[in-house]
Amino acid sequence: MKYSLIATWNMSLNGIGIAANLLDNGADLKDAIIAGINDVENNPNFHSVGYGGLPDINGECSFDAGFMNGDNLKFGAVGSLRNIKNVINVAELLSHEERNNFLVGQGALDYALAHGFKTCDMLTKESYDIYKKELDNNKTVIPYHDTVCFIGMKDGHMLTGVSTSGLFMKHKDRIGDSPICGAGFYCDSKIGGCCATGMGEDVARSLLSYRCVSLMKDGLDVDTAVKKSLKEFEERIDNVRDISLIAMDKDGNVSATTNNDFAYTIASSEVKPHAIQLRTKNINKIVD
Amino acid sequence: MKYSLIATWNMSLNGIGIAANLLDNGADLKDAIIAGINDVENNPNFHSVGYGGLPDINGECSFDAGFMNGDNLKFGAVGSLRNIKNVINVAELLSHEERNNFLVGQGALDYALAHGFKTCDMLTKESYDIYKKELDNNKTVIPYHDTVCFIGMKDGHMLTGVSTSGLFMKHKDRIGDSPICGAGFYCDSKIGGCCATGMGEDVARSLLSYRCVSLMKDGLDVDTAVKKSLKEFEERIDNVRDISLIAMDKDGNVSATTNNDFAYTIASSEVKPHAIQLRTKNINKIVD
Repeated sequence: MKYSLIATWNMSLNGIGIAANLLDNGADLKDAIIAGINDVENNPNFHSVGYGGLPDINGECSFDAGFMNGDNLKFGAVGSLRNIKNVINVAELLSHEERNNFLVGQGALDYALAHGFKTCDMLTKESYDIYKKELDNNKTVIPYHDTVCFIGMKDGHMLTGVSTSGLFMKHKDRIGDSPICGAGFYCDSKIGGCCATGMGEDVARSLLSYRCVSLMKDGLDVDTAVKKSLKEFEERIDNVRDISLIAMDKDGNVSATTNNDFAYTIASSEVKPHAIQLRTKNINKIVD
Repeated sequence: MKYSLIATWNMSLNGIGIAANLLDNGADLKDAIIAGINDVENNPNFHSVGYGGLPDINGECSFDAGFMNGDNLKFGAVGSLRNIKNVINVAELLSHEERNNFLVGQGALDYALAHGFKTCDMLTKESYDIYKKELDNNKTVIPYHDTVCFIGMKDGHMLTGVSTSGLFMKHKDRIGDSPICGAGFYCDSKIGGCCATGMGEDVARSLLSYRCVSLMKDGLDVDTAVKKSLKEFEERIDNVRDISLIAMDKDGNVSATTNNDFAYTIASSEVKPHAIQLRTKNINKIVD
């Protein structure tokens, strides 16, 4: 049995360990990835994902998530879903539907409740205090939007999942890139996968996850593909805001790129879970 | 002054005539395209777009729209927006925002009302009767989801806009491909544009609008690119449902493809507005 995992940010380190341990003990790739993401969603200390996520401009928490099966290219997604702790599980469930794979707001909540999910007050005291302080200060948007993304390969099958509370101080019912197939996530078991974290509006119009996988399809290796996808967009558009990408090819080889400071975590059937830091000295020079 | 327009379905014929007339009289490309789409949105006889659109499973009308500026690659989009007649105008307005470019549900309605849009009861007696009959019969989904898409080029600038009431009998707050940049629409003034109509869930996972433009970027002509994008997806996935694409290169040359029966309309500074029928004898043989 061969597997490989990559995930965004240091906050995924415990989760990728849980996922790797499950895979070492024979679990499904889907169960491992969901467990890894749930670990981040459930931790109130991570203010950009799940429970304890930072709220929108009105002080309400809402969540975006997406899940994709690289075997059949089916995806499920939720946007602006409220009062549900593990939104990645709702997205995964939606990926099995023939239609209506992307639900938002009340419709997404109705679907979750009809499928046994329980509601939960998602705004912690700590997150409310951060919100209140920001509101009292200047009502501007802090670019705080670290999405948890996992890409996994097990014996030739690939899956990817992403979950986020979205941009802090966002407009009510703003949808970022995370639930958008091709923007926040994309994977094809015959080629590879890619996921994004960063300023969702720039990711949504650049389709970098899809682009990276397309470049691998054209024959580029995973490292060249992920770097080229971001570089191309920066060559086309001035002032691209912060974007970081993780990527994996169908054989489990991984890479990542960023125009900012970024960290990601990896684990595989050969390599213990650990974090890797990526630093960019300036927006045009990506070094790792 | 040189311009070119292409739009989906016969229902766009009057609108493309309005847009062409405006351009002939010196109007902005944006105003022309919006006027063309508004003509379809305002017509109660078209049951898949705007006023008179068919409702979701609960009998409620909700609307998706997307707008993209090919000069700066900025987009605006709304999903599951209720009680607003000209949702394309809200999407266009959102394309000027620095963030929060994609809003859904109540948040999208709040934004529209704050920007002077008026509410309107969008369910006509005729659409309710169609819904009631379908509900009484079998509660299954009729694949009725003809989206109006316009792509326009004027003197090297490209824009695209799409508007739809979405899948008839959809789940509450289901989002299709229409508000998704790269799926329902994509354009880059330096390359070309493409828009999709059909089963949104299949378009959303195939990113055909973005793919077609990517293929043009790689050097393919518009006709080869649009056909190859759909063909590639059909080679990767079994049982692709109905998808039709319109496309234009940066010089205003147009093409279209379908795996179903489809019609589109064209007009340009040289050619009077007219409709073209595309027929497919079987899913693997696309003839025009």
